[in-house]
Amino acid sequence: MARTDPLDNIRIVLCGTNHPGNIGAAARAMKTMGLTHLYLVAPVRFPDPEANWRASRATDVLARARVCASLDEALAGVSLAVACSARPRELAAPQATARGAALRAVESARTQRAALVFGNETYGLTTAEVNKCQLLALIPANPRYSSLNLAAAVQVFAYELRMAAAEAVAAPGKAPVKADFEELERFYAHLEELMVEIGFLNPRHPKKLMPRVRRLFARAQLEKEELNILRGILKAIAHPRTGRK
Amino acid sequence: MARTDPLDNIRIVLCGTNHPGNIGAAARAMKTMGLTHLYLVAPVRFPDPEANWRASRATDVLARARVCASLDEALAGVSLAVACSARPRELAAPQATARGAALRAVESARTQRAALVFGNETYGLTTAEVNKCQLLALIPANPRYSSLNLAAAVQVFAYELRMAAAEAVAAPGKAPVKADFEELERFYAHLEELMVEIGFLNPRHPKKLMPRVRRLFARAQLEKEELNILRGILKAIAHPRTGRK
Repeated sequence: MARTDPLDNIRIVLCGTNHPGNIGAAARAMKTMGLTHLYLVAPVRFPDPEANWRASRATDVLARARVCASLDEALAGVSLAVACSARPRELAAPQATARGAALRAVESARTQRAALVFGNETYGLTTAEVNKCQLLALIPANPRYSSLNLAAAVQVFAYELRMAAAEAVAAPGKAPVKADFEELERFYAHLEELMVEIGFLNPRHPKKLMPRVRRLFARAQLEKEELNILRGILKAIAHPRTGRK
Repeated sequence: MARTDPLDNIRIVLCGTNHPGNIGAAARAMKTMGLTHLYLVAPVRFPDPEANWRASRATDVLARARVCASLDEALAGVSLAVACSARPRELAAPQATARGAALRAVESARTQRAALVFGNETYGLTTAEVNKCQLLALIPANPRYSSLNLAAAVQVFAYELRMAAAEAVAAPGKAPVKADFEELERFYAHLEELMVEIGFLNPRHPKKLMPRVRRLFARAQLEKEELNILRGILKAIAHPRTGRK
């Protein structure tokens, strides 16, 4: 099925970035989450060795980055632009959390282009920039210090985009084989016998010992192999190979 | 109501960090999400001006960071340690996503201490380090490039912790007290000793026995009382009250 990967329809737009290191780190953050389209609106220093260094193995994202003169240019062809901000605005677009915005962006990106827009490190997005977007997204943060580093904010949004894109896909995974009922019962019987034998469990006053032990192992959801180990230990206690001191 | 803020019961542990800049950036990531307890296990360079610079206004987190000689020291008093890794392990603790692990950690941190443990930038966590944790957490990432910057990974986890803490405003319920790190380590040591003594574990060819056993009990998240039962059994095996036949 040749459906478009929504992540391939989403661009990250950085406006007026001061530090090339942040551009590189943002590229790395993007690539780890499967995003590749980076747009730079009037960056102060780019290209720059510092950007390449911080990009690590995401220099390909930097190499293909589009440098634009204006936000309008970077948003050309985009249907949903999300302003990513650290603080709420008085009169801006509708607001959402990063998670909610990522869901919206991915949904939109199934068929059309979407963009996440980030402001300058010091001032954030200008009101004019926010007003060019259809949605304002906020990362829930410590109200006493909500200033995420630019690349860290890109990382959180990129992560939420990937999570949103993956949500529909069920995780198959090959589950290990669990022990079955009879095996478990044999183990419990064996363990109880041992506990009585060593004087730890008094059959006339068993208290809640066995129920507690059962509860513990039930929580672990023993795998067949694990049960074999435990039963092996019980057997070896009954018939030690090296002789006990 | 003087309920503990779960975020105040969670520490971030960075093992063998190479670059002080990453330590500073991690401190900033933490503070933006309301986390303040930073533990540094054998950092290569700390304190360092680069760390302060990258911490921005989170230098208070750096100033209060605890430098430890070993992971054991950093995990003292911790009931749930989460290994944060970029790659799955063959035989490690139970695995979860960053989101699932954050929910678990916050739940646990309502009453006890939890820790998120991050490895060195180049090598990640060692197997020995992962095996000291009860849960392995992975950030879903691009399989072709899953290498998040260390501070970026801390940011994602810190963000998920904050989201989880905000989500779980519901009634806490009284969770049973979990066994802590030192108690668990004593139990494993005791069990291993017994397994050697009865000839079940050959110290020269230990195979994967102890890691498997650890994984099993890690999954069960032993309560203090349960651990007492298990240790009681081990003691009674060593000194049976009724004499063995």
